[in-house]
Amino acid sequence: MKLYDWHIAPNPRRLHIYLSEKGIQVPLEEVGGDDLKLKPAYITQYPHAMVPMLELDDGTCIGEVMAICRYFEELNPNPPLMGADAKDKAIVEMWEKRANEEGMLAASELFRNTHPAFANRGLPGSAEPIEQHPFLVDRAKARLGRFYRKFDAQLAVNEFVAGERYSVADATTLCAIDFAKWTDSDIPAECKHLRRWYEAVSARPSAKA
Amino acid sequence: MKLYDWHIAPNPRRLHIYLSEKGIQVPLEEVGGDDLKLKPAYITQYPHAMVPMLELDDGTCIGEVMAICRYFEELNPNPPLMGADAKDKAIVEMWEKRANEEGMLAASELFRNTHPAFANRGLPGSAEPIEQHPFLVDRAKARLGRFYRKFDAQLAVNEFVAGERYSVADATTLCAIDFAKWTDSDIPAECKHLRRWYEAVSARPSAKA
Repeated sequence: MKLYDWHIAPNPRRLHIYLSEKGIQVPLEEVGGDDLKLKPAYITQYPHAMVPMLELDDGTCIGEVMAICRYFEELNPNPPLMGADAKDKAIVEMWEKRANEEGMLAASELFRNTHPAFANRGLPGSAEPIEQHPFLVDRAKARLGRFYRKFDAQLAVNEFVAGERYSVADATTLCAIDFAKWTDSDIPAECKHLRRWYEAVSARPSAKA
Repeated sequence: MKLYDWHIAPNPRRLHIYLSEKGIQVPLEEVGGDDLKLKPAYITQYPHAMVPMLELDDGTCIGEVMAICRYFEELNPNPPLMGADAKDKAIVEMWEKRANEEGMLAASELFRNTHPAFANRGLPGSAEPIEQHPFLVDRAKARLGRFYRKFDAQLAVNEFVAGERYSVADATTLCAIDFAKWTDSDIPAECKHLRRWYEAVSARPSAKA
């Protein structure tokens, strides 16, 4: 088993946090290049051209962070980070999906439409060029504003994003917030509950994994 | 238990297909209005302002299609539509995630930036206005082109999207393709494997659920 990794990138970080919280160690291979692109040999081997990717001993390639977490969670259910019963699993999946689609994708939209190294890489994956556009910088800021407020309201009445227990929804939310900071977006001062939560989860050892 | 539904909308359709394939019936309440907006009373009750949403008898609200499917799948594992073991579950989740993010979100980007009724609703959810933009019409077409080609390659070597068994990844892929057709995007003629699969899954009774 081997995990293809780009250690500084936000999506691999979601998985590193998960693995740290579970106490699981996996051999890593770094496939990010110094030019802020995936190494060409990796793209040839894995044309989806995304990280992280888990290669099993039988050669099966599992991409997409939550799919990789699901694989480990099914084999190592304790401590549960993706929910403990049907209702709990559904609630974790709901909030993780929101953290990804409303937080991570918005932070990605802001970063990819701003950073010079991502000119013509407005969307992830390797294919024909996708231009940057200033409209998407403004739209991403509006999306992040919605995201901060929605998660602040959820954390006003819950210790963690998906309820009373730390879960993958917290990992994704933390990575989204820290990713947005790369492009000078941050939790608004008035989102006190989200800030309280952010301080707490950032202090866990897994946040530095 | 009650499912809040907007029967013509693409995301609820993913769930209707799932429920039909599983043979599960749930009482429905239609919350889509004649003005192509969610009914105001529903948005007041459920500020996330998205459909579908499953309300359990204890009042718990589960939103996000795959979270609702997860709830039913945990309680009714057979026939498995989200994978049967750890590896299989991971592969289904990987392909369902790609079908959603690379297919559904691209079709949504195309539709929401084109249809007059979605002026100022460039993104789902209820909040401040998000303008339409012609750049996103072109970008969405490029995204859909990538999506068709990627899934054609996968279906060249697999009967179904996630392998040899029908799964939620097929439901999401079908809904993405049919959603894109609303805005005159369609599977390119050269994507023969995707077309073969499309004919087969469209003929299943669940496609009309």
